[in-house]
Amino acid sequence: MTSEAAFIAALRAIATAPGARGLHDDAAVLAIGGAQLVLTMDAIVEGVHFLPGDPPDSVAWKLVATNVSDLAAKGAVPRGCLLAYPLADEDWNAAFLTGLAAACDAFAIPLLGGDTVRPPEASARSFALVALGEGVAGVTVPARSGAQPGDDLWLSASVGDAGLGLALLQGKGTADPSHTEALVERYRRPSPNPALGVALAPLVHAMMDVSDGVLIDTARMAQASGARAVIELDRLPLSRAFVATLGDELEHRLFAAQAGDDYCLLFAAPPSATGLISLSQTHGATLHRIGRIESGIGLALTHAGTPVPLPERLGFQH
Amino acid sequence: MTSEAAFIAALRAIATAPGARGLHDDAAVLAIGGAQLVLTMDAIVEGVHFLPGDPPDSVAWKLVATNVSDLAAKGAVPRGCLLAYPLADEDWNAAFLTGLAAACDAFAIPLLGGDTVRPPEASARSFALVALGEGVAGVTVPARSGAQPGDDLWLSASVGDAGLGLALLQGKGTADPSHTEALVERYRRPSPNPALGVALAPLVHAMMDVSDGVLIDTARMAQASGARAVIELDRLPLSRAFVATLGDELEHRLFAAQAGDDYCLLFAAPPSATGLISLSQTHGATLHRIGRIESGIGLALTHAGTPVPLPERLGFQH
Repeated sequence: MTSEAAFIAALRAIATAPGARGLHDDAAVLAIGGAQLVLTMDAIVEGVHFLPGDPPDSVAWKLVATNVSDLAAKGAVPRGCLLAYPLADEDWNAAFLTGLAAACDAFAIPLLGGDTVRPPEASARSFALVALGEGVAGVTVPARSGAQPGDDLWLSASVGDAGLGLALLQGKGTADPSHTEALVERYRRPSPNPALGVALAPLVHAMMDVSDGVLIDTARMAQASGARAVIELDRLPLSRAFVATLGDELEHRLFAAQAGDDYCLLFAAPPSATGLISLSQTHGATLHRIGRIESGIGLALTHAGTPVPLPERLGFQH
Repeated sequence: MTSEAAFIAALRAIATAPGARGLHDDAAVLAIGGAQLVLTMDAIVEGVHFLPGDPPDSVAWKLVATNVSDLAAKGAVPRGCLLAYPLADEDWNAAFLTGLAAACDAFAIPLLGGDTVRPPEASARSFALVALGEGVAGVTVPARSGAQPGDDLWLSASVGDAGLGLALLQGKGTADPSHTEALVERYRRPSPNPALGVALAPLVHAMMDVSDGVLIDTARMAQASGARAVIELDRLPLSRAFVATLGDELEHRLFAAQAGDDYCLLFAAPPSATGLISLSQTHGATLHRIGRIESGIGLALTHAGTPVPLPERLGFQH
């Protein structure tokens, strides 16, 4: 067990309130004043979650977007956020604030407060944000753990773009400039869709966001649900920029499924949830059926009907 | 203007939602369902808010307690908290968790979630906690800004102990071992009283917690309220350990009023609020009238009826 896994296991012994959901979900859920308050906190660290060269406004955007992505995954309407900010030099601060304002505005999430600290010299930049949302009235806030055998498995957007954008930033390969821009943008400025999450919440059995990669996040959903997930890799949605840069063979599909930072929705819904396709149209997102939930345990992959062995590394573990 | 002041001024231009209270208060207030949700986030940094030698369990306690102190100041019942935790070595993690569990238990605040990060080497330890509470139904959540001329100014506990405890830890002076223990304990393990805050909320015009020192925090209340505060330093409550170690002359009282980390309640209430004294008895806290609110601006000090000039440094500014 890694020290992080050991730490989280020990935290679980403390976080025994039902709203903590055993720390197994994207967010906590607290009943307050007749509402379902959804709470998430994501911290990001320079060199781990973003690159030292990333523009400060995109760091702020990413911090807000990763938290909003958790709210979207719980079908929660964003209600507010709080920021822990270590002061930097004035230019960095100003650029960060520009991105913060833009993201709060774009996701309609008011900044309510937070804390600033003066970090000691030579510390890596590290930011934490808490986002609050309100779950859909009368609908159980979707958990990771509700997937049932017979469900279809869906994705709300193409995957792999952010991972490929990161690889390009790290000098691993090249792409056509217009594709590079689109792919780097997906890495730096995730665009979660909370309105889509709200609309999906009543239709799904389980929902979570894809942050560490489709394979590892699907495996987590399967494990939390006590079920087996099968991903048909040939159904994985890939963007035009991704295919033009890398290709769409099995190896490229595996790359896309192992890459992190997608921040789209992964959900399991019964075949009877016929409203899904019309939802796609309303919310400007194309929903893609990528597989199914079966009885059993674990994760299985196929490509054009043929079983594919699981890669050793399923995704980003941090 | 310091870079922090400039940053917070720029943040205010973003945090325009009413619930943010202009970032001038201890906490944000969000109407959700039929409840008043009170939200606060405090970050603490090694070398700034705690000493590198402080026991990890006391660091966790202090992190929870400083946030609970903000809830107490808004008369909010603690409902939950979320933690941003940079992983340390296993012994440190384990000791931190012991203190976290003890504090969550003592303040009846469930741990609901959070995030762990793996900090880069050589970073100072830095933790952030968000605490949520529920305001008293039917009572406006007390602000810093409501003090009115004619109000009395009150403190809910003795001050200066934590500051003296810190000084002793830093090798500035010595004390009798039993006093040292009590004073260091006040520095390392603040003991806010949210039940007292809840009971006070309907009776006060303004309330906040004392975190940076009585003088600077009273000046902040006066400024937010557009009024003048007068503190009678001879009325400042000092503990037996404080007086035995330092004394109770004017200079010692000024030290106590400039020291931070008291985490007790400062409030302004009209003389008609006659329930205050009986509250003291119910909640095991002695309330001390330390001055009054007048029309005007700023802060004034007296000692035994004689005006005392304001010291250059009012408290802890960070």
